[in-house]
Amino acid sequence: MADDKKLVKEITSMDEDFAQWYTDIVKKAELCDYTSVKGFMVIKPAGYALWEAIQKDLDQRFKATGVQNCYMPLMIPESLLQKEKDHVEGFAPEVAWVTEGGYEKLPERCCIRPTSETLFCDYYAKTVKSYRDLPQLLNQWCSVVRWEKTTRPFLRTREFLWQEGHTVHATAEEAEERTIQMLNVYADFLEEDLAIPVIRGQKTEKEKFAGAAATYTVESLMHDGKALQSGTSHNFGDGFARAFGMQFQDKDNQLKYMYQTSWGMTTRVIGALIMVHGDDSGLKLPPHIAPTQVVVVPIQMNKEGVLDRAGEIADRLRKAGVRVKVDDTDRRPGFKFADSEMRGIPLRIEIGPKDIEAGQCVLVRRDTHEKTAASLAELEKEVPELLERIQGDMFRRAEAHRDAHTYDVTTMDEFAETVKNRPGFIRAMWCGSRECEEKIKEMTGATSRCIPFKQEKIADRCVCCGKPASKMVYWGIAY
Amino acid sequence: MADDKKLVKEITSMDEDFAQWYTDIVKKAELCDYTSVKGFMVIKPAGYALWEAIQKDLDQRFKATGVQNCYMPLMIPESLLQKEKDHVEGFAPEVAWVTEGGYEKLPERCCIRPTSETLFCDYYAKTVKSYRDLPQLLNQWCSVVRWEKTTRPFLRTREFLWQEGHTVHATAEEAEERTIQMLNVYADFLEEDLAIPVIRGQKTEKEKFAGAAATYTVESLMHDGKALQSGTSHNFGDGFARAFGMQFQDKDNQLKYMYQTSWGMTTRVIGALIMVHGDDSGLKLPPHIAPTQVVVVPIQMNKEGVLDRAGEIADRLRKAGVRVKVDDTDRRPGFKFADSEMRGIPLRIEIGPKDIEAGQCVLVRRDTHEKTAASLAELEKEVPELLERIQGDMFRRAEAHRDAHTYDVTTMDEFAETVKNRPGFIRAMWCGSRECEEKIKEMTGATSRCIPFKQEKIADRCVCCGKPASKMVYWGIAY
Repeated sequence: MADDKKLVKEITSMDEDFAQWYTDIVKKAELCDYTSVKGFMVIKPAGYALWEAIQKDLDQRFKATGVQNCYMPLMIPESLLQKEKDHVEGFAPEVAWVTEGGYEKLPERCCIRPTSETLFCDYYAKTVKSYRDLPQLLNQWCSVVRWEKTTRPFLRTREFLWQEGHTVHATAEEAEERTIQMLNVYADFLEEDLAIPVIRGQKTEKEKFAGAAATYTVESLMHDGKALQSGTSHNFGDGFARAFGMQFQDKDNQLKYMYQTSWGMTTRVIGALIMVHGDDSGLKLPPHIAPTQVVVVPIQMNKEGVLDRAGEIADRLRKAGVRVKVDDTDRRPGFKFADSEMRGIPLRIEIGPKDIEAGQCVLVRRDTHEKTAASLAELEKEVPELLERIQGDMFRRAEAHRDAHTYDVTTMDEFAETVKNRPGFIRAMWCGSRECEEKIKEMTGATSRCIPFKQEKIADRCVCCGKPASKMVYWGIAY
Repeated sequence: MADDKKLVKEITSMDEDFAQWYTDIVKKAELCDYTSVKGFMVIKPAGYALWEAIQKDLDQRFKATGVQNCYMPLMIPESLLQKEKDHVEGFAPEVAWVTEGGYEKLPERCCIRPTSETLFCDYYAKTVKSYRDLPQLLNQWCSVVRWEKTTRPFLRTREFLWQEGHTVHATAEEAEERTIQMLNVYADFLEEDLAIPVIRGQKTEKEKFAGAAATYTVESLMHDGKALQSGTSHNFGDGFARAFGMQFQDKDNQLKYMYQTSWGMTTRVIGALIMVHGDDSGLKLPPHIAPTQVVVVPIQMNKEGVLDRAGEIADRLRKAGVRVKVDDTDRRPGFKFADSEMRGIPLRIEIGPKDIEAGQCVLVRRDTHEKTAASLAELEKEVPELLERIQGDMFRRAEAHRDAHTYDVTTMDEFAETVKNRPGFIRAMWCGSRECEEKIKEMTGATSRCIPFKQEKIADRCVCCGKPASKMVYWGIAY
């Protein structure tokens, strides 16, 4: 047992040091690693398999709403980046510049895309002529570069993978509808497949995207009580359209500006997956997104028939649509148990000579460590049902944790005390002024996470200035 | 009919001006376009859907051989690029340099990856300790940048999409086996799914990849008689391993260098698809890779029941696993026919009131323009079979074209005359000297495409110097 214990022992307890626990999981579950390129990660096979599962799932959801994929250039000429003023102000401080190509200094330097609004604007300005060409619903899967000073695996790195959707519409109403539609796609994806409950709402003026008229966000709460922005959807109105001359001939023969949206989700959500569900045994993946849903561990593997039976179980489950593998490596079962728990595989099936004799196997849930015996004859029915139960329980557990860590406050003293002693979401009324928002950040370190769509009146007055307030806001310490 | 004819008329005939025909197809089938970023393309939805189909297919083939996906940084520090001498010499002239990030000059400039051998080497050097960690079979899907002076859509652009596989092995034999295995994956993919026949062989010393011990290639012939390198697989031996200190502890406790391979296929193959199969009506996609395999065109769409019946046909085919869409736009049938031919959809189904009365529909093959009537009751059987026939016929037609444009020559006069008057593959004996290879290029413009695995003795002596020769080589004018 020495080895098995050691494997587990090397993870810091999450209660002791959450940041170190996170780093340990990322490393031990082999999700990603640092490289010789400062601030850049390598996403290792186990981490990339998660991203592939996320991509596949999200991509289907996008396409179901009529979105098509495309690919825009990696580089943006400086003059193009500068066309929309708020946008360039927001991104210029964090871009990387390409200044030379093929031994020659470029006539105009180009930044590596930090996001691609400017390229899509340039494209739409050239290709959309008439209302018949609208709407355009494009998305791309790519990497972007933002020159962060401090980095953390998945959460903040100089390069990250994401998708960025960019749409243009004939009317403001249609653009607003699409912005909310895509936010809901993110929310549904996070809740249904990643088992991460979210708060849907709008960003304040201060926190909105550089150049947007309105930014909507889905916010989730990590196990340590910090908030993570998990997906955003922006309505640009016709701001970029005016800056880029994006006009179309409408049905009434008038030349009009297009209305535009963009929306993105990144490899950050892998960080959320770790921090919402993980425990001191390692990663804990929701079955819907787990690249491997079931691991079959043969017990007394050398005994006749054990490996064969393990393989049969895997084959049968595979035919039933379950993503399954057999761990037939030459390590001891105890090591395999700890290893599969570290990697977050939702369900383990143990099968040994005694089980075979009894016509059964043992099912062990990753989320609860609960063990049950199951009849071998019933596996095709039992296992998918159990995986669905695990999925649902993981969501409800995360939701209960979030709700237990959401605090309503009505005074600044309460606010400061809560931030200090009870990490979580803080709900408080706000008058709508930037001054109060800044003051709250200064006094407590908390930022506004969103103005939730589902409003609840907690008090009549702004928690900060005491003036009448009609908006309830979620606040928190953010990743 | 005016509009419909115009649509077709705008394409230059391929016999008149092949280069312009290619450009016209790329534009009219809406595959890709130039952007404000010099030398960089936008891949439009129709082009990207092709790339997605290629990715999905190839990725399954890779994974079936045990390959896993991962993601490496976009940027390579100059010192890392310089570690292997041949490699840096090969790539330094065509890289783009990042020199500033977040308002600061970088302590060391980084190039945007032109290929990622150096990053994978750095990674393997750090992570592989023992023979137990071998082999490592990694691949990544990404974009790379090479600073080309002249560009053509898909064929040569400053940025392109590709996959690059990088593996390390304990023995030279295993590395060689993997190199050939992946070349065969490419060849099978090209022949079975893109319906493009290929010559499998080895590159000469002169034409091999910068830093490789051996490069293998699959070469295909375009309709205009020019050659296109369609996929390459490299065996590095332990060359990079020595440069990067990539060592592992072997079973015998000795510290040994790893053996390494890499292999890649790019968006260039979309260019090959166009140039192997296309005709003066537009693109012609093989059914296995076509994002839309069947378009249903309703005739007299406003007559009662026609649109419903078209929708029913599509639903039934979709359930039978066919990728199908209905063109229910408000344009005339003639326009829709021309449009679907331009986009290369393999099969068109026409259905009008008379057909419905007769319980049939009309099937029109894109590859031959052949029309046949088919019973509506039999569609689930007929259509998939016909698609398979089209796939097979397209391959055989491309193969016949290639064979009819492959010429054996035994003298330099014949060589020069053939290059001048009969574009195609030239097969000629070669002594193995770089001098002859260079002289042939100088005299005829043709380069060696490969030393084919399937050798045939055409003559006893080198076509250039007349010395004894044992190797038959494929030569050609290359894209």
